[in-house]
Amino acid sequence: MPYPETAEGFMVKDHKEWSTFHKQEFKLKPFEDRDIDIAIDACGVCASDVHTITGGWGGAPLPLCVGHEVVGRAVKVGKDVKTIKVGDRVGVGAQIGADLTCGNCKADQENYCPNSIDTYGAPYPDGTLSQGGYSSHIRAHEYFTFKIPDNIETSIAAPMLCAGLTVYSPLVRLGAGPGKKVAIVGLGGLGHFAVLWAKALGAEVYVLSHTPAKKDDALKMGAKEFICTNEKDWNEPYKFAFDFILNTADATDKFDMPTYFSTLKVMGKFHIVGFGDKPLPTMMAQEFAPNGCSIGASHIGNRPEMLAMFELASKQNIKSWVETIDISAEGCKQAVERVWKNDVRYRFTLVNFDKEFGKRE
Amino acid sequence: MPYPETAEGFMVKDHKEWSTFHKQEFKLKPFEDRDIDIAIDACGVCASDVHTITGGWGGAPLPLCVGHEVVGRAVKVGKDVKTIKVGDRVGVGAQIGADLTCGNCKADQENYCPNSIDTYGAPYPDGTLSQGGYSSHIRAHEYFTFKIPDNIETSIAAPMLCAGLTVYSPLVRLGAGPGKKVAIVGLGGLGHFAVLWAKALGAEVYVLSHTPAKKDDALKMGAKEFICTNEKDWNEPYKFAFDFILNTADATDKFDMPTYFSTLKVMGKFHIVGFGDKPLPTMMAQEFAPNGCSIGASHIGNRPEMLAMFELASKQNIKSWVETIDISAEGCKQAVERVWKNDVRYRFTLVNFDKEFGKRE
Repeated sequence: MPYPETAEGFMVKDHKEWSTFHKQEFKLKPFEDRDIDIAIDACGVCASDVHTITGGWGGAPLPLCVGHEVVGRAVKVGKDVKTIKVGDRVGVGAQIGADLTCGNCKADQENYCPNSIDTYGAPYPDGTLSQGGYSSHIRAHEYFTFKIPDNIETSIAAPMLCAGLTVYSPLVRLGAGPGKKVAIVGLGGLGHFAVLWAKALGAEVYVLSHTPAKKDDALKMGAKEFICTNEKDWNEPYKFAFDFILNTADATDKFDMPTYFSTLKVMGKFHIVGFGDKPLPTMMAQEFAPNGCSIGASHIGNRPEMLAMFELASKQNIKSWVETIDISAEGCKQAVERVWKNDVRYRFTLVNFDKEFGKRE
Repeated sequence: MPYPETAEGFMVKDHKEWSTFHKQEFKLKPFEDRDIDIAIDACGVCASDVHTITGGWGGAPLPLCVGHEVVGRAVKVGKDVKTIKVGDRVGVGAQIGADLTCGNCKADQENYCPNSIDTYGAPYPDGTLSQGGYSSHIRAHEYFTFKIPDNIETSIAAPMLCAGLTVYSPLVRLGAGPGKKVAIVGLGGLGHFAVLWAKALGAEVYVLSHTPAKKDDALKMGAKEFICTNEKDWNEPYKFAFDFILNTADATDKFDMPTYFSTLKVMGKFHIVGFGDKPLPTMMAQEFAPNGCSIGASHIGNRPEMLAMFELASKQNIKSWVETIDISAEGCKQAVERVWKNDVRYRFTLVNFDKEFGKRE
């Protein structure tokens, strides 16, 4: 059963062999009236993909095709779809479904819908398991499908759909803009977008990283200062300095939290978007008291934020810093292994899907 | 050297004998031009007093006189004092000094001044140790001295100065008001004020407690519902229900955090004002993700909030629920031991200071 009953993708079968990809068919969910079939041309490689296939975030349903930074062409459009037509260049991020009727959905908080469906590894109501974008096709609900602005190239657009949105949403919700000092912890896939967006939104951006070699890149992306957190007392000149900290690192378990907290303004927030495999450091409630700070996290973003992010990128001509790799079993392996080692500046996009899957019109 | 060089108070000399009080003299700081001397008539008994004298929050400088909910009469006023005159009934809370020149102080965040001086156990610039209100007199800077509205009785006013402010400040900063659903965890000294203020501010108040016997009191204070957190799945009917949770309990180390978090609206906050002796439960950053919630804490409140709180109490005739105990070595012992056992509904005020210390004009 080829497409449209199935798609073909690169799947992981065993957490112990998490970088061994097998090209095989998987079932697509039943096509519904607001669904769109997308022939995939590019897919970003997210740290989530690695945490999932390694089992680091807990066991995932296997075999699984990961990938949730998907760009392609709409090849089939349900009869009730209004925003997309066949041939449009479109993207899908880390969320592919929600009930769209609950209080959260109605309040543009569909990323917190209790019936949210992740782009891969989540069951649809009919039991079909969602499968990601290291594949020939994806079937997506219109609400979670986004037209890509013409001036953003496909491989540049792909990582914006998860990494880009994941930092754009909290930056906007926490008020990044003129007059605000924003610290970004970690300069990886998420962090590099955080610097680009925060700067574009008008904030003063400070990069906190333990990798001095990334200083030049941080400044090129628009950071005002690069602060090396390996240095003793790095926080001293920055007491009460930042409106908020956006932590994109996933090794927060190794952080000395009071040191980071000390750099926050009164009622400032340490906001996490990098989810590690280990718990946060042990904290006393008293550690929040010197400035009334708080710690929290967020999960991707909503549709209006996705649209606003692409508009900002289009208007200011902001480009993701990506390396491209041709999709194949070997290409997927190389990508996830290098992401696992943090050996990427700053995001991989898998490309050249036609070579692997044919034209797919 | 009697007053004005010294005051006389009930002091603890040893953490191991934390409820044994010794009546003795202690030195007052040098009198300055914006200082006020207060002859004390009442002092509330705060859980902080107990955490301090037991050593639960770490060793304190001993011997120490605790007490930071002080009401009395101004008996001497420095030449630059503008807001208080001799004879005024005034109060002092948990903070007695700050530099009043730093960025935080200038922004009405003096409770987060890095040079803040606690009302007891903290060194003044000249080296004098601050001593609290289980005593005959206190010497306080005008900025940290508050006129008590005429219609609030002395023993009722005293616990507002720390417990009252500590919950009033975050309630206001987190937006308690009409249309907001506020959950108060714990119905003790802090919690009972939180219910009274939140109701007075117009919010819908839900009390979360593991002590079903407190239900009637909670409803009398103005709670809409009492939710018993001993019951299995108590959170199920309250998913995404509360704008924020104000946690006044100091046993947060025993909480199942995801259960509490599940009752918060998207981007809701679990805000702590009850500081225990033990760390918070171990948390994964992922636990914040289902609703993008956060956890934080605050430390007392600022001068404008203190004034606004007293105005609210005066206008709406809100009364603390207090039991009074005559001050003496035995009275202090009884008060702190009962606070330690949570055997108080809902606050003790030490009174009848004239009997112990004479008239003091």
